[in-house]
Amino acid sequence: MPLQTPDPVKIAILGCGTVGTQVVRLLTEQAAEMAARVGAQVQISGVYVRDISVPRDAVVPRELLTSDLDALIADSHVVVELMGGIEPARTAIVDALSAGKAVVTANKALLALKGAELYESADAANADLYFEAAVAGAIPLVRPVRESLAGDRIERILGIVNGTTNYVLDEMTTKGLPYDQVVAEAQRLGYAEADPTADVEGHDAAAKAAILASLAFHQRVSLDDVFCEGISSVTADDVAAATESGHVIKLLAIAERTEEGVAVRVHPALVPLSHPLAGVRGAFNAVFIEAEAAGELMFYGQGAGGGPTASAVMGDVVSVARHIANGGKGPRESNYADLPVLPISAARTRFQIRLNVADRPGVLSAVSAILAGKGISIETVRQSPGSGGTAELVISTHRAPERDLDQTVSELRQAEAVNTVLSVLRIEGE
Amino acid sequence: MPLQTPDPVKIAILGCGTVGTQVVRLLTEQAAEMAARVGAQVQISGVYVRDISVPRDAVVPRELLTSDLDALIADSHVVVELMGGIEPARTAIVDALSAGKAVVTANKALLALKGAELYESADAANADLYFEAAVAGAIPLVRPVRESLAGDRIERILGIVNGTTNYVLDEMTTKGLPYDQVVAEAQRLGYAEADPTADVEGHDAAAKAAILASLAFHQRVSLDDVFCEGISSVTADDVAAATESGHVIKLLAIAERTEEGVAVRVHPALVPLSHPLAGVRGAFNAVFIEAEAAGELMFYGQGAGGGPTASAVMGDVVSVARHIANGGKGPRESNYADLPVLPISAARTRFQIRLNVADRPGVLSAVSAILAGKGISIETVRQSPGSGGTAELVISTHRAPERDLDQTVSELRQAEAVNTVLSVLRIEGE
Repeated sequence: MPLQTPDPVKIAILGCGTVGTQVVRLLTEQAAEMAARVGAQVQISGVYVRDISVPRDAVVPRELLTSDLDALIADSHVVVELMGGIEPARTAIVDALSAGKAVVTANKALLALKGAELYESADAANADLYFEAAVAGAIPLVRPVRESLAGDRIERILGIVNGTTNYVLDEMTTKGLPYDQVVAEAQRLGYAEADPTADVEGHDAAAKAAILASLAFHQRVSLDDVFCEGISSVTADDVAAATESGHVIKLLAIAERTEEGVAVRVHPALVPLSHPLAGVRGAFNAVFIEAEAAGELMFYGQGAGGGPTASAVMGDVVSVARHIANGGKGPRESNYADLPVLPISAARTRFQIRLNVADRPGVLSAVSAILAGKGISIETVRQSPGSGGTAELVISTHRAPERDLDQTVSELRQAEAVNTVLSVLRIEGE
Repeated sequence: MPLQTPDPVKIAILGCGTVGTQVVRLLTEQAAEMAARVGAQVQISGVYVRDISVPRDAVVPRELLTSDLDALIADSHVVVELMGGIEPARTAIVDALSAGKAVVTANKALLALKGAELYESADAANADLYFEAAVAGAIPLVRPVRESLAGDRIERILGIVNGTTNYVLDEMTTKGLPYDQVVAEAQRLGYAEADPTADVEGHDAAAKAAILASLAFHQRVSLDDVFCEGISSVTADDVAAATESGHVIKLLAIAERTEEGVAVRVHPALVPLSHPLAGVRGAFNAVFIEAEAAGELMFYGQGAGGGPTASAVMGDVVSVARHIANGGKGPRESNYADLPVLPISAARTRFQIRLNVADRPGVLSAVSAILAGKGISIETVRQSPGSGGTAELVISTHRAPERDLDQTVSELRQAEAVNTVLSVLRIEGE
């Protein structure tokens, strides 16, 4: 259904929970960028809710709300399904695809149970079905697995795809606490649901494992094919024994190709501390992939939450809207933004300056005065004795512009109290 | 240039080095999978080399070699440029794009210097230009950045995108050795070139930073815009001081959006040990992205080498070939493979079995005999004293089928010497 470029691409949002609200916000705030990336205006045709009288977040204009699902779908080019659950989501998606609409969904339970039916509806109508948000929230996995690795052979996927269980196991490991106590605390903090069954018994992870395995091995894998064991029987003693043998316990979603076929399972497992997955902490997710030619890959990020899930949904909306606006070629780099490219002097970073100085009173004060004179504030100073009446000063600064730093270093080199500027290194990632 | 499905998509390979050879191998070995994923046969139309008389790897059939570049391009739908350098790569790519051919390239130097010209040629002819392999080898970054995150706002990218320098800094950190000695050893082992300048002075990383920044910020960023400082002045004392303050030194490619514009730079930096980039070891690459809605993401894998680079090239070949074969819609899940989905009983994993046993002679022998009887071999056993005449045995097994394990555990539960089977956990990731 290619459009004339001036016509807007109309987007129906089904559902107005945390993710739906964030998607409305991003579509509104980033309308100009979206238009540039898509090649046409992107417009919300309506937001489906069961009851339009319930109050919503202020970013969702009241006049967009509708409870007429069929009319909304009929009036849109793209349907974004964020209701969750099986019905009415399944019927809405199948109807939309059959009518040739593009569909974006974050509904992992539906895909894990009814994926084959949805894929077939999409194929039969030659319509786009995108679902990046259904696998691991914000982490781009669908495109990497089904496009970037499409010419390689994936051998195995090991994923930490449930943040609640990863948080619980992490707390048990770092604080040595028993399972029940950590789960209760997680519920209090909002990291676990009042009924945590779907997370702790591995059902959520199993749904994602089924979707991932289907993509990786081009094979129909349904939730029923996934062996599933949760973390509720993991004890503090298990965690302690794992630590003792150089491992950490993680709930893993595993999909592997063997000589006999494809095996998909979810269970707690001991992971060696040296493995990249061992360092994945708290509510973060990560998916580790072994492929024949690519070797080892890992994708890491936030697997849940309104913002991260909305980010993944928005990427899919741009992709399908591009297909509608330009007839399906890959993305274009022609629509440049108009941001100036800055010189290094404009960068603002933290610095670590190592100085060899005379070891006598007043030196630190003289050095501090030089930094202060340029408006650079010191975070920490460590002094250690050098040889022959000298000392080494290691100064970490707060964030400062590169140009001020350059002048400061020149002055330090001239300073009577400073023997040598040993090194100046930037500090990043804090 | 959509094809009738029965016609093959013809691929020209320009260059027959390590990567070209691997691409030929994968296209040959995976011909059936490729055809299923693309929706048409994918055929190598020829391999361009300057001198066809030079002997090549046996996977490259002699009859495919040609030194007639123009004729090869004219006879192909897709041109895969793996020659490297500026010319004749630039002219070949521009000519191919202008003739409406799809182009896949791994040429980071060319993209960093002449990217804008190539993008414009592609746009003018409405032709596909794909370059996943040019940014960080096997790590899928181009699709995630320009598609998955297309509806989000990328704030900052921090990348470890050069394996040689990461290896050198890693060795300096873990072994406390000086820079010169580590570089010499890296050269001996083949991890660094005889002339390591392009790596150690940051030029390779700067080219990748320019490409990444262009994609992330939809902004023309050329190599000349990138501030570049290498690692050759990093001393063992710097590394020791970094360790002392809880940091590790990494060569980072940084692209960030500030209020004033876009800043792109490459330099060594102190990274806190708690940051996900701090754990990226040896020759691995990783790119850490901060986006407004998605939050923190990281992509990790092998950034160089024939296999990993060929994997990225192959993904691009499948994408552009799909566009040619089916007119540009997204990937389809309809072409399923025919792999059986296996039950958990067929899985083979390692196990850790914790037992509470009677603390007396012969118990270990009795337990071992039960495992041996099922053909499960023991890797390690740790025994620690329990309370009241009992002991705890922690047994790690070699890889064994799940069904044998189930029977073994049943027998252990019955065994006279075993008081309790405390837990059975699988071991993964080794």
